[in-house]
Amino acid sequence: MNAQFEELIARLGEIADFNNAAGVLSWDQQTYMPPGAIRARAQQLTTLRRTAHERFTSDEIGQLLDDLEPQVAELEPGSYEASLIRVTRRDYDRQRKLSADLVARLTRTTALAREAWERARKASDFALFLPHLDEILDLSVEIAEALGYEDRIYDALLDRFEPGLKTARIEALFAEMKAGLVPLGQAIAGQQGRADDTFLHQDFPVDRQWDFGLEVITRLGFDFEHGRQDRSAHPFTTSFTPADVRLTTRLSPGNFKSALFGSIHEAGHGMYNQGIPMDLARTPLARGASLGVHESQSRMWENIVGRSRGFWTFWLPRLREYFPSQLEGVTVDAFYRAVNRVEPSLIRVEADEVTYNLHIFVRFEIENLMLERKVRLSDLPELWKTKMEEYLGVWPADDADGVLQDVHWSSGMLGYFPTYSLGNILSAQFYDQAVSEIPDIPAQIEKGEFGSLLGWMRTNIHARGAKYTPAELVELVTGGPIRTEPFLDYARSKYAEIYGL
Amino acid sequence: MNAQFEELIARLGEIADFNNAAGVLSWDQQTYMPPGAIRARAQQLTTLRRTAHERFTSDEIGQLLDDLEPQVAELEPGSYEASLIRVTRRDYDRQRKLSADLVARLTRTTALAREAWERARKASDFALFLPHLDEILDLSVEIAEALGYEDRIYDALLDRFEPGLKTARIEALFAEMKAGLVPLGQAIAGQQGRADDTFLHQDFPVDRQWDFGLEVITRLGFDFEHGRQDRSAHPFTTSFTPADVRLTTRLSPGNFKSALFGSIHEAGHGMYNQGIPMDLARTPLARGASLGVHESQSRMWENIVGRSRGFWTFWLPRLREYFPSQLEGVTVDAFYRAVNRVEPSLIRVEADEVTYNLHIFVRFEIENLMLERKVRLSDLPELWKTKMEEYLGVWPADDADGVLQDVHWSSGMLGYFPTYSLGNILSAQFYDQAVSEIPDIPAQIEKGEFGSLLGWMRTNIHARGAKYTPAELVELVTGGPIRTEPFLDYARSKYAEIYGL
Repeated sequence: MNAQFEELIARLGEIADFNNAAGVLSWDQQTYMPPGAIRARAQQLTTLRRTAHERFTSDEIGQLLDDLEPQVAELEPGSYEASLIRVTRRDYDRQRKLSADLVARLTRTTALAREAWERARKASDFALFLPHLDEILDLSVEIAEALGYEDRIYDALLDRFEPGLKTARIEALFAEMKAGLVPLGQAIAGQQGRADDTFLHQDFPVDRQWDFGLEVITRLGFDFEHGRQDRSAHPFTTSFTPADVRLTTRLSPGNFKSALFGSIHEAGHGMYNQGIPMDLARTPLARGASLGVHESQSRMWENIVGRSRGFWTFWLPRLREYFPSQLEGVTVDAFYRAVNRVEPSLIRVEADEVTYNLHIFVRFEIENLMLERKVRLSDLPELWKTKMEEYLGVWPADDADGVLQDVHWSSGMLGYFPTYSLGNILSAQFYDQAVSEIPDIPAQIEKGEFGSLLGWMRTNIHARGAKYTPAELVELVTGGPIRTEPFLDYARSKYAEIYGL
Repeated sequence: MNAQFEELIARLGEIADFNNAAGVLSWDQQTYMPPGAIRARAQQLTTLRRTAHERFTSDEIGQLLDDLEPQVAELEPGSYEASLIRVTRRDYDRQRKLSADLVARLTRTTALAREAWERARKASDFALFLPHLDEILDLSVEIAEALGYEDRIYDALLDRFEPGLKTARIEALFAEMKAGLVPLGQAIAGQQGRADDTFLHQDFPVDRQWDFGLEVITRLGFDFEHGRQDRSAHPFTTSFTPADVRLTTRLSPGNFKSALFGSIHEAGHGMYNQGIPMDLARTPLARGASLGVHESQSRMWENIVGRSRGFWTFWLPRLREYFPSQLEGVTVDAFYRAVNRVEPSLIRVEADEVTYNLHIFVRFEIENLMLERKVRLSDLPELWKTKMEEYLGVWPADDADGVLQDVHWSSGMLGYFPTYSLGNILSAQFYDQAVSEIPDIPAQIEKGEFGSLLGWMRTNIHARGAKYTPAELVELVTGGPIRTEPFLDYARSKYAEIYGL
């Protein structure tokens, strides 16, 4: 391309360097940073993030986009140049709509709210968090109005995480999910004896858990030449270009499932990040299509692959070498049932495949009511409990295990929760498509071979970076719209078999 | 102070954030970064360093300094405001003298030279490095001319590391050191049986070395609330404000001394960094007075404290609990002699206290000849050997163990080596002063108490950051000029006793 395009690429590259450097500092903060460094680190991050924001929202970037848009109008929309201009324009317009003052107020408010949320959750007292949530809701409405929307105020916030996706579409998808999952959960509730997992609650020494987890994710295809795994209080994945992707996990002797499936989940995110072509690095295209599409990869490896009978047919003999006494006499079938035990519970992050989405629907519905000012915030604890009983048949004893359990609102991330369920929906849709094109995949998984599946995801999902919106990507990859049937069929047949329904 | 001063502080703070962020990225590169990330990391570092340089050398900083200098002229020179303006001006003028083009050429040249040096050292073939050294010498002369000097070209390069110190003064100090150390080394050469260290060359499991090292540096006063230690190929210390100081060490089972004394050395640097007041953080005052003064702290803890009889009177019983079989029957006296064994050798970084400085004199003299164009670079290998024989009585068999052993020249750091010997000189001078003010210090060390000594260093050295030049600091702290007698007296009496001279 021409000199202007080169100029844009150079500027975006520098901005990416600032953001990637901030990523390294955040990773360090959560893994190795000494506790006394917290204030100095906050200053460094503020300077890096502000510099990146200022440079990205500069008039110069706007002028370059104005000049380049007519030049790429004739190009194929999936081409590097057209995609880059289109996605950069979308990000630019969105960021320009948020004034520096609004961003600064959000930063201040969420810093205080985060602290207040931690105190409130510890005390299990929603009242401590309420005034902060009130401010955050006001700011979220202000942000939504600044970003603009046609139909629903929720659209404006959702669009930050799922470009192009509307609230009405999410509602339709979730209604289908609900119609399938609520009865499934109820049917299972009567049969819980069929999936006994007591043997998983023995002592599993963490060093051996760590080694087994590394062996698994290495074989799945996570590339340690361009990544690593460390420990942190809360597992996460981050990347500072596709050449440097960091996973974290958390280990405890009595919770074998948490570390292993956590590692596989994060490796699913990590392999997506590693699969983004280096040609896209240091541009706005060097990320996933959306958070939901990102979650489709983590959930596919964690659940559809990692909790399949074929997977454990291969891995259980190996796992038995790590933990011979703990797994004595445990068959593949018993192990498979144990890691797929369904049990309605209060806490989202510990939920199984069937009930997990129900937790999301509760949050999604409540967020809409909040943004549309249809609920008083002081009524949230009760509303939460009512909806939990409606969907899951459980009743939180207190706010800590209820409305206060998630960090998201304190960070200002309203509109984020639906991405989790969208990830589940897409995980099955993409997996089904892969198997329809490569029918041998389940047999390969049983032999511990994951290359074909990863290769398909690389080609169809990862290699495209953020060129397409989620709906465009699904259309390209599957030839149709986002659909819940693959997930519902998967869940129904898997759990009907396990629970003899 | 006024709004202009606040403006300067704010700008310097942001610049420090960029440099500290770059410090985190460099630390990560040398400790945890996956190997495939090297190119992406180089880009991130280039962007951060260039941004810091551009902002620091901006006309706005110059204007603020111009405006503020008259305002601080009446203030006490050691005040925060006067020191900040003075030191910032010195840095600013120096960096402005180096054109962006010159800096870019140096970066390119040293990147290639570093690679060539590694290849040349591996092949032990100076000819492979020669053309790169030739370019680096040309650039160093160009830099020296740009920076300016009155007497000797070496002054301009030395001043980057030792503000205000002249080559002639270094020569005078080194002449005194040589006159004392060369005969001392020769006298010891005939008595080597008196310091047997064979028991140190047994198998010392690295996990226990690690734990013992942590115990030692914790007790010395390194603060793990504001710092940590990790492993790296080459030990180093770095800090991202005094609240976050990182040490690294390297461990091998057969080399007990290397890891322990390396850890103590780096902790000496680290405690200096941690001792700089947070008021000075994010300004040009938040560093040591010079590299030599920094080295005085690392060498004092490593050698004067860490290799003293009193130190091992306290620590040997504890060390024996870590390594009972390896240290069976080893007395404090035998241990003390072993860790103080003097032996002329080819490699600087492995040298003992007596011969270490002789390695430096060789390099310092050769660098002067190079910069004054008094030696052909192709003659360096022979010149090196001749001087090594003259000072140390050893003759390198090849270039890898001779002229190619150090990385400094390939990085463009001519003028750096004298800081090592200056550190040794100052370590004894500061320690003597501390003991003259607190005579109980040696007795405290024997009881494993290091707080008084660290406290004295905190107050007299660390708390002053970079407010003073090395000569000013020595005058303030000791009431006189930099002197070699303390080091020579220390070395003569210690080694006369060990070797029965």
